[in-house]
Parts: sequence; C-alpha cells; structure tokens
Amino acid sequence: MSSLNRQRLSLKKFVESNNFQHFLIFLILFNAFTLGLETSQFGKANAGILHIIDTTILVLFSIELLLKLIVYRGHFFRSGWNWFDFIIVAISWAPTSGALSVLRAFRILRVLRLLSVVPQMRRVIGALAHSLPGMASVVGVLSIIFYVSAVLTTKIFGSHSDSNMQEWFGSIGASAYTLFQVMTLESWSMGIVRPTMELFPLSWVFFIPFIIVTSFAVLNLFIGIIVDAMQVMHEEEGKPKKTIATKEDMLILEEKIDKLNQLLQQQHIDNKRLL
Amino acid sequence: MSSLNRQRLSLKKFVESNNFQHFLIFLILFNAFTLGLETSQFGKANAGILHIIDTTILVLFSIELLLKLIVYRGHFFRSGWNWFDFIIVAISWAPTSGALSVLRAFRILRVLRLLSVVPQMRRVIGALAHSLPGMASVVGVLSIIFYVSAVLTTKIFGSHSDSNMQEWFGSIGASAYTLFQVMTLESWSMGIVRPTMELFPLSWVFFIPFIIVTSFAVLNLFIGIIVDAMQVMHEEEGKPKKTIATKEDMLILEEKIDKLNQLLQQQHIDNKRLL
Amino acid sequence: MSSLNRQRLSLKKFVESNNFQHFLIFLILFNAFTLGLETSQFGKANAGILHIIDTTILVLFSIELLLKLIVYRGHFFRSGWNWFDFIIVAISWAPTSGALSVLRAFRILRVLRLLSVVPQMRRVIGALAHSLPGMASVVGVLSIIFYVSAVLTTKIFGSHSDSNMQEWFGSIGASAYTLFQVMTLESWSMGIVRPTMELFPLSWVFFIPFIIVTSFAVLNLFIGIIVDAMQVMHEEEGKPKKTIATKEDMLILEEKIDKLNQLLQQQHIDNKRLL
Amino acid sequence: MSSLNRQRLSLKKFVESNNFQHFLIFLILFNAFTLGLETSQFGKANAGILHIIDTTILVLFSIELLLKLIVYRGHFFRSGWNWFDFIIVAISWAPTSGALSVLRAFRILRVLRLLSVVPQMRRVIGALAHSLPGMASVVGVLSIIFYVSAVLTTKIFGSHSDSNMQEWFGSIGASAYTLFQVMTLESWSMGIVRPTMELFPLSWVFFIPFIIVTSFAVLNLFIGIIVDAMQVMHEEEGKPKKTIATKEDMLILEEKIDKLNQLLQQQHIDNKRLL
Repeated sequence: MSSLNRQRLSLKKFVESNNFQHFLIFLILFNAFTLGLETSQFGKANAGILHIIDTTILVLFSIELLLKLIVYRGHFFRSGWNWFDFIIVAISWAPTSGALSVLRAFRILRVLRLLSVVPQMRRVIGALAHSLPGMASVVGVLSIIFYVSAVLTTKIFGSHSDSNMQEWFGSIGASAYTLFQVMTLESWSMGIVRPTMELFPLSWVFFIPFIIVTSFAVLNLFIGIIVDAMQVMHEEEGKPKKTIATKEDMLILEEKIDKLNQLLQQQHIDNKRLL
Repeated sequence: MSSLNRQRLSLKKFVESNNFQHFLIFLILFNAFTLGLETSQFGKANAGILHIIDTTILVLFSIELLLKLIVYRGHFFRSGWNWFDFIIVAISWAPTSGALSVLRAFRILRVLRLLSVVPQMRRVIGALAHSLPGMASVVGVLSIIFYVSAVLTTKIFGSHSDSNMQEWFGSIGASAYTLFQVMTLESWSMGIVRPTMELFPLSWVFFIPFIIVTSFAVLNLFIGIIVDAMQVMHEEEGKPKKTIATKEDMLILEEKIDKLNQLLQQQHIDNKRLL
Repeated sequence: MSSLNRQRLSLKKFVESNNFQHFLIFLILFNAFTLGLETSQFGKANAGILHIIDTTILVLFSIELLLKLIVYRGHFFRSGWNWFDFIIVAISWAPTSGALSVLRAFRILRVLRLLSVVPQMRRVIGALAHSLPGMASVVGVLSIIFYVSAVLTTKIFGSHSDSNMQEWFGSIGASAYTLFQVMTLESWSMGIVRPTMELFPLSWVFFIPFIIVTSFAVLNLFIGIIVDAMQVMHEEEGKPKKTIATKEDMLILEEKIDKLNQLLQQQHIDNKRLL
Repeated sequence: MSSLNRQRLSLKKFVESNNFQHFLIFLILFNAFTLGLETSQFGKANAGILHIIDTTILVLFSIELLLKLIVYRGHFFRSGWNWFDFIIVAISWAPTSGALSVLRAFRILRVLRLLSVVPQMRRVIGALAHSLPGMASVVGVLSIIFYVSAVLTTKIFGSHSDSNMQEWFGSIGASAYTLFQVMTLESWSMGIVRPTMELFPLSWVFFIPFIIVTSFAVLNLFIGIIVDAMQVMHEEEGKPKKTIATKEDMLILEEKIDKLNQLLQQQHIDNKRLL
C-alpha cells in the first residue's frame, strides 16, 4: 500500500468518524442560528460579524466536501445525498450582488443539510421518497384532471371581462392555481364559486364534482400509501410464515402414512398366512 | 379463412400494436398542448392554424374509432372505455355555432382519453370505480341527511326576508349547496353560521350536529374504503392460506395413525401368539 | 289457536311482507317529494292539495304503527328503531299553530324513517352506532379540554371590552362555539387569532397548542375507529384460523408416531427372535 | 410492625379506596361547575360565596396531596401523574394579585386533574403519549422545514415595506405563525398568498410546494401512527401464532414416518424370508 493510499485511508476514517459528524451537525445548527439572527434587529446592527462567521462556515463546508471528494473520488457523485450537499454549497458561492442578490436568502437552505447529515432524518426522507413511485399513476390522473379543468375554466370563465374572472381564470396558470385552492377547500365557496355563480349560475355543476373527484383521488392516494405501508409490514412479518405447514406438506405426509398402512395390512395378511 | 377475414385480422394486429397506441398517446398529448395554446395570446393570433391542427386530430381520432369498430364490430360497445372514447369524439363533431358554442370548450375533454388509452391510468380509474359500490349505502344515508337538512333549513331560515338568508337558504338547491359548503368546513362559521345566529340565535343547535354527523359519515366512508382495500389485499394474500394445514387435516392424519397403531398392536398380539 | 291469534298471525305476515315494506318506502319517498315541493313556488300555490296529501300519508303512517303495535304488542317498544318511528310520527300529530308552528318544518324528519325501513341503511346506522362506545373516553378527554379552554378563554379574552372579544369569548357558550370553529380550522387565524393577538399578543401560546392537541385527539379518535374496524375484520377472519394446525396438534401426532415406532421396533426384535 | 407504620398502611388503604377516588372526582366536577359559574352574571353577583367554595376545595386538594405524600413518600414523585397534580395545585396557591392576577384564570386547569384521576382518561392520555416517540423524526424534519421556510420568507417577503408583509413575515416568529396557518390551509390563498403574489408574482413557487410537502409530511406522521397501532395489534394477535405448526415440525414428522416405513419394509423382507 503506497503512502498516498495510506493517507487516503486515514482521511476516510477521519471523515467517517462520529466526532467529524457531530462537529458538522454543530456547524449546521450554529449556522442556522446566525442566519436566523440576521433577520433580527441585533443581527442588522452586527451584519459585519455575522458575515464573517457565515463565510467561515461556508469555507468549512467546502473543505468538508473537498475531503469527501478526495476520499470517495468518483463514488462521491453516486449518492443523491452528496449531490444535494454539493449543490447547496455551490449555490452559496454564487455571486450575490446585482440581479442575483435574492440568492443571498437561499443560504438558509444549507440548514437542509441536517436532513442529509442526521441519519434518522435521512431515513424519514428516504421513506417519504420510497412512497413516491406508488403514487405516480394517481398523480398522473390528478394532473390530467387539473390540466383539462384549467383549460376548460380558462375558456369558459376566463372569457368573461369581470376583473375577478380575469384574476382567477385569466390564463391556464391562474386557473390551475385557483383550482388547487379549490381542491384544498380554501375559501372555495365564499371566495370563488359564489362570485362565479353570480356570472355563471350553473358553474356549481363543474365545481362540486371537481371537489368530490379530486378529494376522492387524493383520498385514494392516501389509502394507497397506507395499504402499501401495511403490505411492507406484512411482508416483513410474512417471511417466517413461508415455512408454515401447508396442505401440500400434509398431503405428502398422508400419502406416506397410507403407504405404511398398506404395508402393514399386507404384513397382517402374511402373518395370518403364517399362522 | 376468407380474404376479408384475413384483412380484419391484420387490421386487428395493427390496431392493438404498441406503435399504434404510442402514436395515439402522442396525438392526445399534442392535442392537449394545442388546445392549451388556444387560451394564450399566441394562440389567439394563430387561431386559424390551431383550428386546422385540431380538425386534423379529430379526423384521426374518428378514423381510429372507425378502425376499432371494423375490427371489433359488436364487441366494440361492450367496453365502457370504448363508449367513453366514442362519446368524447362524437361531442367534438357537434355543431359549435350559435347556442351550442360553449361545446367548443368541451373539446379539451378529449384529453381525458389518456385515462382510457394509458393502461396504468385505466387501472387507477378502475380501482376508483371498484370502491364505488361499497360506498352506496353510506352515500345513501348522506343523501337522506342532505335532503332532510336542505328542506328543513329552507323552511326555517329561508322564510326570513334577509337577503343573505334568501341567497343561502332561499330554495332547496341553494340550501343543499350551502350545506355542502358547511360540510367541507369552508367559512362555515364566519361566513354562514355566525350571520345566521344573529337572526336565529339557536341555529348552532342544527349546524354543529350537522357538521359532526356528516364528518362522521364521510369518515366512515373513508374507513370503509380502507378496510375494503385491506380485505382485498388480505384475500389475495389469503389464497395460498387456504391450502394451509388445518386442524381437520390434522384429525384425518391422526385417525390414520390411530388405525396404524391398532393394526400394529393386532400384529403384536399375532406375533406373540406365533411365538 | 284461537281465531284472534290466527288473525294476529296473518296480520304479522302482512306487516312483514315485502310488498308492505315496498309500499312504505314508496310512501316515504313520495312524502319527501311533496314536503320538498312545499318550498317551491308551485307548492305555495297548491298548499291546500299538498296539505291533504300530507295528512293522508300521516294517517297511513299512524295506521302502520298501530298495526305493528297490535302485532308485536309489548315487544314493539323493545326495538330502538320502533321508538324512532313512533316519536317521529307522534311529533307530526303535535299542534302546529301558535308558538309551536316551527314544528311544522320538522315534518320533513319523517323522511329519516327511510333509515329505519331500508335494511341497508339500517346496517350503516348500526355500524356508525357500533363505533360510538369505543370513542367514549377520547370524547371525554376532548370534552374536558373544551370545557377548560372555554372557561379559560372566557376569563382572559372575554374580560376585554372589545366587541369582537365579547362576541367570540363573552360567555362559556360563545367561547365553546369559537373553540369548535378553531378546532375545525375554519378562519381560525385570519378570523379569530390574528384579531385576538392585536389585543393579547401572546394568545397564540394558547391557540397553537389547542389546535395541535385537539387535531391530535381527533386523529386518535379516527385511528381508534380504523383499528377497531380492522380488529373486527380480523376476528371474523380469525374464526376459521382457530382450527388451524397448531404445534400442540403436531406434538400429539409426533407422540403417536413415536409409539408406532416403538411398537415396530419391538416387532422387529420379535421377528428376529422368530427367525 | 410499628404503630406508625400500621397507621400509614391504613391511610394507604383509605387513599386508594374507591370512595376516596369517587369523592375526588365529585370534588373536581363540582369545582369545574363553580369555576364555570364565576363567568356568568350569577357568579359575578355571588363572587364572595364562590371564592369561599373555591378556597375550601383547594384546601381539600392540598390535604389529599399531603396524604399521598405521607403514604408514598419518595415514591410519590416517581409518577408523572403525581407531578402533574402537584404542579396544578401548587400554581393555585401562587399569589394572584398584581402582575400575576392572570394566574387566577389558570385555576380552571385544576379540572384537568380529571385526566389523572379517572383511569379511562389516564389510559387515553397514555396512548397519546405512547405514539409521541415514533413521531420524533418526522416532527424533526417538519421543524427544519419550518425554520428554513420562516427564515427564507422573512428575508424575501419580510424585506418589503408593505404593511401586510410586515405583519405576516416581519420576523421569524411572524413568518412561522403565518406558515403554520398556511399549513393548516386556513385562508392560505385568499388571505395570504394572493396578496403576496401581487407584490411577488412568483411567490406561489414557494407556497404550493410548501403546502404539498408539509401536508405530505403530516400525512406520513398520520400513517406512521396508524401502522404503529396496527403493528401493536398484530403483535398481540401474533403471540399465539408462534405455536402454529411450522414446516420444520412437518419435516420432523416426515422423517419419523420415513423411519417407520424403512422398519416396516425391513419387516416385510423378514416376513418373506420367514415364509
């Protein structure tokens, strides 16, 4: 083993040590605190110091990623979590003057690194992500319903010159947003449908089924996830169940005993003959 | 096999081919895009071209249905999905001038054909439809509660001359709509019940139980669907379980072994006598 | 069997016949229709005819109950459903003039008899009622939380002279109603808590935990009902499971086979001796 | 046993007797009633009498705790419920004049003692508390999302001079409250996001994913609790299952029967030789 490799190995040990991880978590929490402080009166008065602390922490984060890049090399980018960390740190290095000054606010996203550093949180996110594929087809159906409804409401209600109609259904985007609001049941009646019914008295014919159908679809999404979670639980439980005595095992046994019986009866006849 | 039949068979192969289906899906998605475009500024400026594209796609859809009609003949109308496709295309051919011009907006419903063409979506809709019969009796109870409540509120609150009361409870239809809003909890208190309580101070005696009862009924609908989904899951799991060794199998085995035992003991006696 | 008893028996057959029940359901539905009609313009113009129809149906309902009373005698009042029917019909006979004229509107409650006459609906109500006892203790906890919160908010917020505070928290009843509204999340923030925070800046300290705790309690109510429903399902499934082959059965079998083995080996020795 | 110990034992019997507990429950309910009465017109007219009753009950509660302290000594503070009772009674003895006069309203918290005295309620609270640890990591993820979102919205929307923006997003606390309101879907669109979009047209890019992610996380919290409750149920069910006949038992039996078969065949050969 070359001296260089040996160095990489000891670096790997260091990077994967508990102390290193605890230090990282502390750094993220401390950064969360200073970034939060920036919004307070005290923070605005001490912007200079907070800026220095912030840059220091960013440098430390960058060194951490550099070390990991050295240790894992090509393997580094195989983990989605590493991509997540890399992008969040990279964004922080973007110039934040001029038009991109809004990016300065995005530095707080670094705190999301907690989700990738703390193993328990990682597991929660993993579980959330795990249930996504099972939702794909229901989400697809919901998307189609939304797109069709958005075009329909834009064409019918958005053609009215009333300012509310223009604001709510003036374009496909506006309609989709309004329909999302209706789906969450927020002010759907007093805010949206009652004013719409004053101009289009039959509009409830669209909105009430829309609410029922989308609620029902979301409900099924929900049920799908529960049943899925149950099935996973059952399968884990089920593994020992596979070794349970089945009817087939029983039939094999029965056959063998029948054979025994025949043998014995044959013997009985033999014995009788003997006597 | 006649030449005509052979032609029908090769047509069937063509209609059921993956390429044909992929082309259909592409056509629907493209149509969804152009129909969405119509609502934009760009679409209004190029209404002529979009109209030509739209008519072309409609013709293609009609040819597709014609081919399927030729291939499946009478069987075509046995599938609910085919009816769905047929009606949606038929509506598009309806004259869209004059009083029926609103039907032009309904062309977007063609995009719903995705639900019937993409197999995964078809399955989702099938699953949604599957859980409907189990809901029939709860929906029935909810309908009775709604009808009785709508008549009651119309007679009591709708008899007041206040303009809000007239708008919310003026007729059975208005009451039913308001009660649906109350059931979804949208502005039920600040929007409806508090103003009503100013005129009828005891109206909460009706509304609070109404909210609890309908929420409870919807909850039971929900639970019913979950338990149903579970049961389906269990039954699927249960199929191999039916071949599990039961106590009855055990008793049959036991009996046989007892018989063996008797035989052997008989033999033992015989052998003793022999000796 | 006396002639009187024979008459009662044939009356029982008549009362329990499908035709009689179908006639009853038709009568209730027809009454639902005429009572609904009363609220319409047409109904107000033909109030006289509708009144005659209504009285006729009430007489028919009374005869039905009388017949059932004759048939079942003392047993009649052992069923909660019969009490339900009896009270609803009795209310309809109450004088509806003067102060009690509001009772006229309650005639629509007769339509609720569908819940007791149609067996499927009866089962739904039965299932709803079945899950009530399991909810008793959670409902108890919720009641205590509500009472304590209502007294607390009345004493703190209700002591303020602001008219909103007086309307929302002026008395225990007003507070309980407002807290119910907050629990259903209806306008809790924009409608109630933000205005309250202008007078009592720390009031969120009470409301946010209140929302979380009550939502959590309702959630547990919900989960309790689901788990209960599951358990019922499992127990029903479980009944045949009790006859599944258990380890004990296995041990009994094993013992018997061991005995056989011993017998055979004994025989083997005997046979050897014989030889 | 010393006389003192004997006295302690008989005191313990008294403290743990059903009568003592029933008397306590009655005392709490009566106190709940008198504390509620204080808010009424009647209560304000008879404040003197109510104050005397209240002090008497507080003295009785204090004696009760004193007795329990004598009986259980050091063990008293090992139970969380006793701490709960102790703190609630201690608060009631705090001076309620001057700045602390608001503490007078907190006397109603004594009614919460019902939760610790009535065993059924105690079980409900225990079950609620039992599901808390399983929620820790999801609550952690939610907290991070809330903190990051609160800092982000404060920096972006809170920097605007508009009075609404200042009220909703002026500080991290204000932002967190507003985001909690958005998460509960209360007036999220008409109340918060639509006005915000007038100043920041792209703000929906933040709010819609925020709603979906937090709803999804809360959903998973919910599912986690259900699955957990199910698992507990299954495990309880599962205990007798462990004695079910397994394939291993079957193989042991099969081996034994095979041995029998060999023995019998051997015998058959012996018998043949005999003949």
